[in-house]
Amino acid sequence: MMIPEKLVVIAPHPDDETLGCGGTIARFAASGNQAAFETTHREALAAFKILGVARSAFLRISATMVRDVPVAELNGKIDGFIREIGPDMVLLPFPDRHIDHRIIFDACIVACRPVHAAAPKTVLAYETLSETHWNVPGIEPVFAPEFFVDTTDYMAKKNAALACYASQISNAPSRSVEACTALAKFRGSQNGCGYAEAFKVVRIVV
Amino acid sequence: MMIPEKLVVIAPHPDDETLGCGGTIARFAASGNQAAFETTHREALAAFKILGVARSAFLRISATMVRDVPVAELNGKIDGFIREIGPDMVLLPFPDRHIDHRIIFDACIVACRPVHAAAPKTVLAYETLSETHWNVPGIEPVFAPEFFVDTTDYMAKKNAALACYASQISNAPSRSVEACTALAKFRGSQNGCGYAEAFKVVRIVV
Amino acid sequence: MMIPEKLVVIAPHPDDETLGCGGTIARFAASGNQAAFETTHREALAAFKILGVARSAFLRISATMVRDVPVAELNGKIDGFIREIGPDMVLLPFPDRHIDHRIIFDACIVACRPVHAAAPKTVLAYETLSETHWNVPGIEPVFAPEFFVDTTDYMAKKNAALACYASQISNAPSRSVEACTALAKFRGSQNGCGYAEAFKVVRIVV
Amino acid sequence: MMIPEKLVVIAPHPDDETLGCGGTIARFAASGNQAAFETTHREALAAFKILGVARSAFLRISATMVRDVPVAELNGKIDGFIREIGPDMVLLPFPDRHIDHRIIFDACIVACRPVHAAAPKTVLAYETLSETHWNVPGIEPVFAPEFFVDTTDYMAKKNAALACYASQISNAPSRSVEACTALAKFRGSQNGCGYAEAFKVVRIVV
Amino acid sequence: MMIPEKLVVIAPHPDDETLGCGGTIARFAASGNQAAFETTHREALAAFKILGVARSAFLRISATMVRDVPVAELNGKIDGFIREIGPDMVLLPFPDRHIDHRIIFDACIVACRPVHAAAPKTVLAYETLSETHWNVPGIEPVFAPEFFVDTTDYMAKKNAALACYASQISNAPSRSVEACTALAKFRGSQNGCGYAEAFKVVRIVV
Amino acid sequence: MMIPEKLVVIAPHPDDETLGCGGTIARFAASGNQAAFETTHREALAAFKILGVARSAFLRISATMVRDVPVAELNGKIDGFIREIGPDMVLLPFPDRHIDHRIIFDACIVACRPVHAAAPKTVLAYETLSETHWNVPGIEPVFAPEFFVDTTDYMAKKNAALACYASQISNAPSRSVEACTALAKFRGSQNGCGYAEAFKVVRIVV
Repeated sequence: MMIPEKLVVIAPHPDDETLGCGGTIARFAASGNQAAFETTHREALAAFKILGVARSAFLRISATMVRDVPVAELNGKIDGFIREIGPDMVLLPFPDRHIDHRIIFDACIVACRPVHAAAPKTVLAYETLSETHWNVPGIEPVFAPEFFVDTTDYMAKKNAALACYASQISNAPSRSVEACTALAKFRGSQNGCGYAEAFKVVRIVV
Repeated sequence: MMIPEKLVVIAPHPDDETLGCGGTIARFAASGNQAAFETTHREALAAFKILGVARSAFLRISATMVRDVPVAELNGKIDGFIREIGPDMVLLPFPDRHIDHRIIFDACIVACRPVHAAAPKTVLAYETLSETHWNVPGIEPVFAPEFFVDTTDYMAKKNAALACYASQISNAPSRSVEACTALAKFRGSQNGCGYAEAFKVVRIVV
Repeated sequence: MMIPEKLVVIAPHPDDETLGCGGTIARFAASGNQAAFETTHREALAAFKILGVARSAFLRISATMVRDVPVAELNGKIDGFIREIGPDMVLLPFPDRHIDHRIIFDACIVACRPVHAAAPKTVLAYETLSETHWNVPGIEPVFAPEFFVDTTDYMAKKNAALACYASQISNAPSRSVEACTALAKFRGSQNGCGYAEAFKVVRIVV
Repeated sequence: MMIPEKLVVIAPHPDDETLGCGGTIARFAASGNQAAFETTHREALAAFKILGVARSAFLRISATMVRDVPVAELNGKIDGFIREIGPDMVLLPFPDRHIDHRIIFDACIVACRPVHAAAPKTVLAYETLSETHWNVPGIEPVFAPEFFVDTTDYMAKKNAALACYASQISNAPSRSVEACTALAKFRGSQNGCGYAEAFKVVRIVV
Repeated sequence: MMIPEKLVVIAPHPDDETLGCGGTIARFAASGNQAAFETTHREALAAFKILGVARSAFLRISATMVRDVPVAELNGKIDGFIREIGPDMVLLPFPDRHIDHRIIFDACIVACRPVHAAAPKTVLAYETLSETHWNVPGIEPVFAPEFFVDTTDYMAKKNAALACYASQISNAPSRSVEACTALAKFRGSQNGCGYAEAFKVVRIVV
Repeated sequence: MMIPEKLVVIAPHPDDETLGCGGTIARFAASGNQAAFETTHREALAAFKILGVARSAFLRISATMVRDVPVAELNGKIDGFIREIGPDMVLLPFPDRHIDHRIIFDACIVACRPVHAAAPKTVLAYETLSETHWNVPGIEPVFAPEFFVDTTDYMAKKNAALACYASQISNAPSRSVEACTALAKFRGSQNGCGYAEAFKVVRIVV
């Protein structure tokens, strides 16, 4: 259960969606459900192909746009996209040390408010290796997940998809494939799985 | 989705399970899945009949036992029961102002640890009107739910089941049927439903 | 006790002050004290008449102004208004999912700092149905009130005043009169009243 | 305003009530209201005389009793005392590093639940120098006060009353008169007073 | 800097000290400082030999004793031990899902209060794989570390020491050597090290 | 131990660095280590001379610049400065009621991320009297320190340095020398020192 029919993933930067929930995307894509995936960048297409995503659409917000566009315009873009796709599950970035993640988190939460019938029933925040864990405990929110997806059978696909973002990954050793695999192993150990991806629940309505 | 096949509800006192999640029990029971419900008291049978529970089993821990029994013995009883039933979802009381709720919460969390294959995949804490909201903000944990079950179509059954506990309910005006209905209306307004029951997610593993 | 002589209510949008503390305004107005009420909009006049407010003044900050005006200018306007009125109690919006509420909360907290003799002795934050409860638990602040005003005898006036904002209220079913009444009933059940309005204490100096 | 007619102060050990709220007791006693003060020990009589308390009553729970008595019996004693006095304000210890403070806090919160008409309308937790500030941030609750009583004119009485507990005070340099005065100065600087005592609001019902 | 001269590690169960801070023990032992290590069990001797601990002493509190002994007696034992050794650094277990960890945490915090000149200047809480991460977010304290020890060069020793506890480790796959290594890799990625152990700061006095 | 070789202090306004950590600066300066101190204003030179700072450098960001400059430019300036100095310890302002403190806190945390070998190993947030304690408990982060520097022998120097900022200090009675001394006395009482300065740990890597 909890396998969505239409999934939307909001990723402020190329690679965020694969780092944070590549295994989950691959597992849900493999479930045979019709899936519409979304991210901010077409560069994700290569990664999506590896992850098995059959259908995808893109929001096209550039990183610079995130910070320079008025809040109302950004909110409108994301809100329109979510209404157009009509997902039952949305995965969005945890509001961490990267200011873009905070801005996009805010815009997504506004767009996902349960104010119309098509609002997504499940909204989850994913962790982005390194940035998420640079929030200051006791001052800023800590990523303490209560929702886990067993991605044991999808780690190979996730790592292959990460390779599509070679430049970003190699520029940031704190988000190496090795560190990413270690995090998945640790998240798995929290709930009896081999490997897992972890999420903070924003809202689930059954 | 998220409709469990086997549900276990742990209730320290008669009426806790109906106050906290009577509508949810009724809705899941109506889903046609095979359901094994559990509570600490046989007095719940009348309420369960109204809620539509087909099969039920009881743990039989008396309220006085909760406080007087050594922790290890209490943990062992609850752990044994959960392993015997093998539920995919467990609903347990939020650790609030009633010390019995705290003791049972602790024992349930230990019993639900993901240390064996049959551990429940979904563990949620329900609110118990009045007691849950007497925790002191800033000192004790606050019930801030992120999981909601739409119980609009099951409020009549819930209220009828509450009537089975007439003595307890009338002794405590802060948990009247009227207050209980108001809480459900408020929880519904948080997520676009007519009426809802709210839960704090302990752990969901997909 | 705790009945203010001069009350200031800061409301970013028409209806916020009635939704959040209409019953409290009516009760304090009925106490016979001289009262100076304040909000951002003259549209509140019809509602204030019903609530029994004898004297009122308005700050006149438009909703669009809230987001577009430099922080220093907004702070200056609110600070000047509060110094001019000299209230002993200020009610301000909880910093919730609506960005205007966050901006106004910040400006009010700065204006209410105890840096001069006329600073208000009691500062409380009110909840705004739906928006306040869309903050994400574990990431954003949760509205966990510790201050309650018994509004049992003033619910009729509050509901009548809400009717003055018919367009806003009907546009947002999550803030219907029915939901608003349910919330008041729930808040009352927390502290032994029939109906109540709830507040988070910012500061009380005796 | 906020001057109580009948005040109950619960103090697990001799000196706690003077350390935590001696200035507040003196100020409220000086207000001319009829006052019934309570603590656990008759040793407080000398201090109470200095603070100006006209009438007092004592609960007589010994420190060893706090830890050894069953919870139900302790709760019953405190509940009975509060019902007998019928205070409109109760001051109780913050649940800090001293286990007795935690046990008494729990018992007081249960006794102060708003379940009957005579329940106290204002319930506040006071800080006990040193112990309160040895709770571990991020793990245990932090004393972050939002309620302040200006005790500038009562510091002399407080310090004189502290001298009645010479043995306890001199045994613990971290709670010296000098440190106690510094804390009052710091609390005063938070809200524009010369000296103040600080409290965490448990519940205020107006 | 921050290399202690005398280190005390409090471990409720055999293997806790190696799981939580085996690399840190090995690194500090290798620094050439005189070191006095402490744990509750002589079984730790084999592990300590591998970790390079030159001198050690043991407190000898059995696991059953932790839960059955009166609080005052347990506190006295730990307090006496710490005063006898006089460490400048104490590592103690985070108060997590294992009730023994909570009891020992409480006793250690009391023993480490800065009430005498020989009190330890640095007090840190370590994480114990699996148990620490079964605390419920939003209800129980979350382990959010701000202190990291680079253990890259000591992982081989740590893993060898873990092998001394083969029975415990194999009984709990959630605390396998593989999971333990993954956690160290993840903690390293948080602060630019290859591998690290993480701690929550209780108190550091310089 | 924990005495830095190169210390950087970031102060949004003249006097912040002396109010928050003047004693610490004086103590570290007296340790004989080579020290490079930094603040935003040359006005600090007189204070630094009294505190015994041998070498200093200044970042030169004006207060108005803090709010008007794009985030990326401010981050770049602070990042460049920290890389140029290469400190092993950075002291930065707690993100409190003053918006400049929040902006500078954010910029400093980004600049101190452990993404390169020269990143500072110890990062601490200091409290600024009055502003830090005007954050609203339960809504905004509370300053709950776990790191203390014994400044007993350096209070005279600190107070002399504060006198260099006579205009600012006298304009704000809530940050008088008397209040500042009381805070230091209180912080000392928390950890067995005569006087102390307190810090929130952002990150320590050993």
